[in-house]
Amino acid sequence: MSGKSAPGTRLDRWFGAYAARTHGLKSSETRALFAVASRPEVVSLAGGMPFLDALPMEIIAKVTADLIATEGAVALQYGNGQGHPVLRGHITEVMAEEAIQAHPDDVVVTTGSQQALDLVTRIFIDPGDVILAESPSYVGALSVFKSYEAWVEHVPMDDDGLVPQALQDAISRLKAEGRRIKFLYTIPTFHNPAGVTMPVDRRAEVLDICHREKILVVEDNPYGMLAFDGSITPAMRSMDEEGVVYLGSFSKTLAPGYRTGWAVAPHAVREKLVLASEASILCPSHASQLSIAAYLETCDWRGQIADYRDVYRIRCEAMLESLEEYLPQCRWTVPKGGFYTWVTVPEGINTNAMLPRATTALVAYVSGTAFYADGQGSRHMRLSFCYPTPERIREGVRRLAGVLDKEIDLVAMFGPHATGPGRDVHFPAPDIV
Amino acid sequence: MSGKSAPGTRLDRWFGAYAARTHGLKSSETRALFAVASRPEVVSLAGGMPFLDALPMEIIAKVTADLIATEGAVALQYGNGQGHPVLRGHITEVMAEEAIQAHPDDVVVTTGSQQALDLVTRIFIDPGDVILAESPSYVGALSVFKSYEAWVEHVPMDDDGLVPQALQDAISRLKAEGRRIKFLYTIPTFHNPAGVTMPVDRRAEVLDICHREKILVVEDNPYGMLAFDGSITPAMRSMDEEGVVYLGSFSKTLAPGYRTGWAVAPHAVREKLVLASEASILCPSHASQLSIAAYLETCDWRGQIADYRDVYRIRCEAMLESLEEYLPQCRWTVPKGGFYTWVTVPEGINTNAMLPRATTALVAYVSGTAFYADGQGSRHMRLSFCYPTPERIREGVRRLAGVLDKEIDLVAMFGPHATGPGRDVHFPAPDIV
Repeated sequence: MSGKSAPGTRLDRWFGAYAARTHGLKSSETRALFAVASRPEVVSLAGGMPFLDALPMEIIAKVTADLIATEGAVALQYGNGQGHPVLRGHITEVMAEEAIQAHPDDVVVTTGSQQALDLVTRIFIDPGDVILAESPSYVGALSVFKSYEAWVEHVPMDDDGLVPQALQDAISRLKAEGRRIKFLYTIPTFHNPAGVTMPVDRRAEVLDICHREKILVVEDNPYGMLAFDGSITPAMRSMDEEGVVYLGSFSKTLAPGYRTGWAVAPHAVREKLVLASEASILCPSHASQLSIAAYLETCDWRGQIADYRDVYRIRCEAMLESLEEYLPQCRWTVPKGGFYTWVTVPEGINTNAMLPRATTALVAYVSGTAFYADGQGSRHMRLSFCYPTPERIREGVRRLAGVLDKEIDLVAMFGPHATGPGRDVHFPAPDIV
Repeated sequence: MSGKSAPGTRLDRWFGAYAARTHGLKSSETRALFAVASRPEVVSLAGGMPFLDALPMEIIAKVTADLIATEGAVALQYGNGQGHPVLRGHITEVMAEEAIQAHPDDVVVTTGSQQALDLVTRIFIDPGDVILAESPSYVGALSVFKSYEAWVEHVPMDDDGLVPQALQDAISRLKAEGRRIKFLYTIPTFHNPAGVTMPVDRRAEVLDICHREKILVVEDNPYGMLAFDGSITPAMRSMDEEGVVYLGSFSKTLAPGYRTGWAVAPHAVREKLVLASEASILCPSHASQLSIAAYLETCDWRGQIADYRDVYRIRCEAMLESLEEYLPQCRWTVPKGGFYTWVTVPEGINTNAMLPRATTALVAYVSGTAFYADGQGSRHMRLSFCYPTPERIREGVRRLAGVLDKEIDLVAMFGPHATGPGRDVHFPAPDIV
């Protein structure tokens, strides 16, 4: 056959044997860029990595050593598929901070909340089923949804998050078309990437719509405890026990290296999640679970989270001040917590096309297209303020402004296609979550 | 509707929303039995848990504490989807012990080899595709295969493992029926549950058949380094780089609590595995990976594995002697390594039906039906000798003999149905792997 051949066909002896779902797995073309972006001279405003230097490492080292020395034969052994009961108990205490009342039996411990997302998608999604998600939505969720051949329908947001009327309209339209809507995926607090938070009354409105339309809500909440002012917005799960699957994580409030997250689900759903998890990994890591349990028992974790909040508040302020100073031609969201702001660039600019030039100018971000299932988003970019110091954030935004000014000049001279078509971000590199 | 309703329908608001694959997820009825079996007064010959008391816990505690104190900001951070390059390097050294030549780039680190199995199945299996597997086969693999709606075709074994002619016959028959065979799943060394090992010449024969028929071989090898005499049978991967996906694990040679295993795959397949893993868990645990790397760098891991071998050799001898003494009416395989022997009980006895009575008599095993996708196996049971002491093993087999004698009496008096139909084992409890 002449013309284009499918990539890898000639080199891959097993090409003809892959499952249908595998043909949707594409490597992100931006990986090479991110490899460049990880060089120390590049200011990365791309990553979602927490700033772990704020952790009491000596204490964690001691707690972990004590655990292995005294309980190693348990901590290094297989556990059960649902997760260790002691950690599940601690998780209910953590969630109580966000007004969630749950029993340890309701909790399923997972390999990061990414695995919880995978399990929820696995048990609910047949190819072609519809998942409602914010517009934009979390890149890692979109990649799971795609891997199960779901159709993602983006629902508009404003500065208060998901717009209820838009949600209702989308549901009515899809149902009229005979589509099977399986769940709404939402990050109501300190949204990734949008940086916005849904107020309580709007949460109630969204829950009402979903209840009426018999649509499950999957609430993803890794950032809820990272409000800059220490305030708490009650989780949607605290307002509806039977209609919400809640996903939590220690990755942003403690450390991602343990790969420990969890799901809280209505009883019957929780049973399916455990069975799916056992088929997939047998059981979550005892070493990680019991290390975290020992940490929570021994250390002032509430104080440590308060330290994290202060770090990220100061960095967010540096980000917002730099945007005002250097990027007055853009718009951005003003987060009250979490890791990200969502920036809209002037018309005609393509953030995908601009990314290689930004990297050359030693600054990195994630282009908005990563956060849509349908190729939208090239007028947006996500800037994260979680990892670099305030000084580096200012320097990064200053460099970005230089790149953007040149793009604007190019567009003014040669029109909006002057900057090239850009690249697709299909799958998350783990360092951009 | 009158008549039987699907279980859970009335209690589960989301029952109608599950994916097709989820209806195959069934809870094992034997879970309650295993809960009973975990009481200390029960001798469990059911578990596949390694005997961790043989590990140098004080040293592991110190190595781990040093790691967190000096490199905590890396060890507790996100990693990349393929796994840490340093650990991948160590994994190639471990595999070199079994004659495998691989580059660190060929290795994908996973959340236990169970996740590797999940990923291989995910990228290759569409519903209805055929997987060839030994008869019997590993319960955890069967549960993954089932969760992706694969058809498992069992291929007969003898005391030298998979029978090549039977493999060829099965392939020819299935191809004549127009079935799509995706891969052969095999545990060639110290098979779980059969306890047997495929000699090198037979490995070559099986590889030849699969090469000729263009069928991928998935070689699962968690026990290969646990030969009682310290000998090594070359892995199938050492004989064929392009036709084999190899699965390895630290769960049996070091400790399962880290949930760290790996896959080695031809280049193009490896790329798909990494993408599928990123969608599923983002990245494997840095904490686990770097703890293991530090252990391998600091400790005499070859000596520790030699200690494990001695422990299991002595326990296997206790098992085989006890079987000779107490269960002369049964047949069993004679393992040269690993954790298990496969016992065949007299005709008319149903090991499923017998299990509750065995548990009441304070001894537990896994009924043979767990190791077949099609309900066979009720004349078999897997006895494991990895976890209890030699004294407990003898006591366990003695108790089992008492139970079996009563079953034989019952059958002699009332016929083979006197002992009841037994229960299905659908999914692995993590403690029986």
